[in-house]
Amino acid sequence: MSTGQNTTWSKSEKQVARRAYDLAYHRECAAIAARVREMLQGDSTPERLWQLHDLLTEERREVDEKYDYRYSVLIFVFARLLREEWLHVADLDGLSEDKVQ
Amino acid sequence: MSTGQNTTWSKSEKQVARRAYDLAYHRECAAIAARVREMLQGDSTPERLWQLHDLLTEERREVDEKYDYRYSVLIFVFARLLREEWLHVADLDGLSEDKVQ
Repeated sequence: MSTGQNTTWSKSEKQVARRAYDLAYHRECAAIAARVREMLQGDSTPERLWQLHDLLTEERREVDEKYDYRYSVLIFVFARLLREEWLHVADLDGLSEDKVQ
Repeated sequence: MSTGQNTTWSKSEKQVARRAYDLAYHRECAAIAARVREMLQGDSTPERLWQLHDLLTEERREVDEKYDYRYSVLIFVFARLLREEWLHVADLDGLSEDKVQ
């Protein structure tokens, strides 16, 4: 099992990793935007607006903490993104077998 | 000219004031919600999403500071709301002449 710290990344793997990382980030942000749109449908009371702000504050904190591109932790970031379904295994096509494992 | 601190509010004036205050607050929040909806139309990139969060943080701070229902400052709050057109003079119908002045 890869320990992250000792993982080396080839140039082509770095390209795959960057693309997958950006893809997941965009997917997750688009999903948050969709929730925001939904929350405002037919209800724009002050309470709803500030609920929405609270939600965004919380999501931003979580996203900022989750998306960490240091190569030493990237394996764990990808594991989490796969688990949360922001990434699919196919998005990581081109990484070495042990990393995908 | 009324100085705020020395202003007295009759029971019926308090009712008018409360209604006008709530009306302005709801109007302003609905306008913010409309801007949020507009910002997300056709663009839900992460950049746009966090711009929107920044906007809401700033608007919330401003709204929290602006809407102050203490009777000692309410005249000034209404003056500002009229200037910013969240209130119209007709919304204050029922307040004494000197307050409206």
